[in-house]
Amino acid sequence: MPLETDPGAGLSRSLASFLAQARVEDVPSAVLHEAKRALLNGIATALAGFDDPVVARSLGVLRAFAGPPRASLIGRSERTDALTAAFLNAAAANVHDFDDTHPATIIHPTAPVAPALLSLCEIEPVTGRAVLHALALGMEVECRIGAAVSPGHYARGWHITATCGVFGAAAAAGRALRLDAARMLWALGIASAQSSGLVETLGTMAKSVGVGAAARGGLFAALSARAGVEGPAAPLEGQRGFLRVMSADPPIAAHITGGLGERWEMLDNTYKPYPCGIVLHAVIDACLALREAPGFALDGIRAITVRGHPLLRQRTDRPDVTCGREAQVSAQHCVAVVLLSGAAGLAQFSDAAVADPSVQDLRRRVRVEEAPHMAVEAAEVQIHYADGRTLARCVSQARGGSARPLSDRDLEDKLRALLAYGGADCDAEALIDAVWSLDEAPDASVLPRRAAARAPRAPDGSRTRPVA
Amino acid sequence: MPLETDPGAGLSRSLASFLAQARVEDVPSAVLHEAKRALLNGIATALAGFDDPVVARSLGVLRAFAGPPRASLIGRSERTDALTAAFLNAAAANVHDFDDTHPATIIHPTAPVAPALLSLCEIEPVTGRAVLHALALGMEVECRIGAAVSPGHYARGWHITATCGVFGAAAAAGRALRLDAARMLWALGIASAQSSGLVETLGTMAKSVGVGAAARGGLFAALSARAGVEGPAAPLEGQRGFLRVMSADPPIAAHITGGLGERWEMLDNTYKPYPCGIVLHAVIDACLALREAPGFALDGIRAITVRGHPLLRQRTDRPDVTCGREAQVSAQHCVAVVLLSGAAGLAQFSDAAVADPSVQDLRRRVRVEEAPHMAVEAAEVQIHYADGRTLARCVSQARGGSARPLSDRDLEDKLRALLAYGGADCDAEALIDAVWSLDEAPDASVLPRRAAARAPRAPDGSRTRPVA
Repeated sequence: MPLETDPGAGLSRSLASFLAQARVEDVPSAVLHEAKRALLNGIATALAGFDDPVVARSLGVLRAFAGPPRASLIGRSERTDALTAAFLNAAAANVHDFDDTHPATIIHPTAPVAPALLSLCEIEPVTGRAVLHALALGMEVECRIGAAVSPGHYARGWHITATCGVFGAAAAAGRALRLDAARMLWALGIASAQSSGLVETLGTMAKSVGVGAAARGGLFAALSARAGVEGPAAPLEGQRGFLRVMSADPPIAAHITGGLGERWEMLDNTYKPYPCGIVLHAVIDACLALREAPGFALDGIRAITVRGHPLLRQRTDRPDVTCGREAQVSAQHCVAVVLLSGAAGLAQFSDAAVADPSVQDLRRRVRVEEAPHMAVEAAEVQIHYADGRTLARCVSQARGGSARPLSDRDLEDKLRALLAYGGADCDAEALIDAVWSLDEAPDASVLPRRAAARAPRAPDGSRTRPVA
Repeated sequence: MPLETDPGAGLSRSLASFLAQARVEDVPSAVLHEAKRALLNGIATALAGFDDPVVARSLGVLRAFAGPPRASLIGRSERTDALTAAFLNAAAANVHDFDDTHPATIIHPTAPVAPALLSLCEIEPVTGRAVLHALALGMEVECRIGAAVSPGHYARGWHITATCGVFGAAAAAGRALRLDAARMLWALGIASAQSSGLVETLGTMAKSVGVGAAARGGLFAALSARAGVEGPAAPLEGQRGFLRVMSADPPIAAHITGGLGERWEMLDNTYKPYPCGIVLHAVIDACLALREAPGFALDGIRAITVRGHPLLRQRTDRPDVTCGREAQVSAQHCVAVVLLSGAAGLAQFSDAAVADPSVQDLRRRVRVEEAPHMAVEAAEVQIHYADGRTLARCVSQARGGSARPLSDRDLEDKLRALLAYGGADCDAEALIDAVWSLDEAPDASVLPRRAAARAPRAPDGSRTRPVA
């Protein structure tokens, strides 16, 4: 398969050289700040996901094979070896699909990359500033490689967060280890040998194995390259390299190196305010606005109409849902639970919320209509009362999208909410402070240590707090 | 991409059911015997490869992250955790490309599968007979999945030994763990999330990372499935599953389940007598026959002609070689070194052999000719002496191919030779006996323990033997 623009020999080599030689002084402050926002959001989602069955069961398996406990697990007081921690923290950060999204590729950039760095800085001395720089570079690498094979790669069935994440993790860890260009190239090559992940696994626990393996594999690639494990000269652009083999359409190699260090893909990263399909976010905003509208009441609702671009109906018209995972893509559930509770957090998309009789009752009165002339980002929700009144709100751009990004304060609140949801014994304010001040930390390991729990959760789910 | 014959829903489920329910009593004795031959050959090649730089460097990295030392490393006295051992033993078995070959797929079947089982039987009680059964089933699964996507999968650039090996390792380990059909299906799904490996990495150390990761990933998949990590219902035949995503041509799903338990792909497995490209094996046999021919002498050779199918010239006409790896695909080197030494082992394809002045001198007199009417399996070597005499030998089928398989005694000799080459402190006869009697062993771990070294190698390469 031809590359659309043939960069000639040396694409991988150019990328490796850039990664090895990039200077943090040349990085715009907005990029380093975005890296902090990604960390805040990624740690937040891991604090909600660390006790999900797939993470808990994987830990149960890996514990028997784990080495000396030198690395932290987000939300847990137990420690493990750095490779195992990278796997588990990545799985936890991504398990609820509540983590970040790079819109052009649908990659969740932080989950595979940040855990490799958080583990690494507990076994090697790395400054906070170096971690932020490495994180920005790693996210940039995975988003750019993803862009080169999009949209065909994901459409054909590769889970792009995992397949491209392993390159991002290798680049980030390699950078933090200060690999030279030759060894950085090997790290990318070792990553290419481990690039895996299938869309067929989404919606099952096996998805998390792919994402965890990307973080672990990337860290392992960087450590192996440092130790002299050699790789191919052209792991990306080679005749049997990643771009040609794992792309459904002709890959566009220029997306990888064009404007490197000048244009930053990772600045396009977005953060979800609500743990459900992005197409429903405008619907949720409209429901939240309705609750604030004069005359709003839950009594006397005859019917509710959701209007939007035809895609909205096609993807989310699900009146009957039986579990939280389905509820994440059900307009009916979304409208009912948000109007009733005034919130759209993980609790609102749990199995318990789905089974709630009052939610079930309201859900039955919601229908979805196609409005062909509405923009795909927009949504309108109309409440029709039995007394003839109608209350309606229209949202043209959902919160959290590129047009209305979550603020730093929003991300802090998200972390506080997800910490409370997950129930880990962490100090939210100290953790938030560790993220915002990471560029001044002489030892970056302050961050993973604060993201760990001070005490284990009791088996019944209540917390065992240390005696003050 | 359509499946050529659509098996409908349930291909993966059928395979998992077969794996869970297969009875060793129903397995032909030839199949269990072939599993022993595969073990003998795989352990032999690992005894030659365990100290290769990629294995030694990977061990150097992984040691810091390894758990309690409960599993053996082939050729080493050091022990490690079972997941790490599976990775390293698989890398060692395959590093020289001297391991086995399934002709229809070019998979090296044993390297990813056997190490997962050798590790597993040191942490879980498994009988020798159960290990042989599990090995046969795992090899069968990887060869059949490979057949379903061949030849397009490898031709496009996937390293089929790694990408399909992870399924074989998961199936084998899952069977040894006695997973039920539901959990076996999850194990295949978790394997699918980790299926990776690119042809671009061949010829570099990164290849071994892919093969090692397949063995480790398969064992991890089986252990995770047992612990309740769930996978998709159709990891193979699903719309975004392995067969459709990772095949270049329409996959032929019937190759996976057709005649399961009746026809055994793994019986087609072949074992290399010589550590070089298979196309050169008939050339080597001809050279060995020439050395036995009346009138053979090394003095007075004016020229040597190698004749064969055009593919032979196209792939191996390499008069100038600079390293052992290139020598493996050089007809000139092959002819010179075999005529001079009378052998074709790893030493004959080392960097030292390439640099040997007498080999260099003879190599220059070898030329390769196309003989369009000769079969691709055949080769002729003619020695033209300065006095006008010509000595020639033609071989129609090389040793080690399907038509002239290595005997059990040949495989024993290969193990003894590779043990001597690698220099591990193992008892060859006890090890060979452990393989042949494995079906009677109540505890299969006798085999990995005998494949381990009794004492470490000294840093200078000499052996530190235990005091008798």
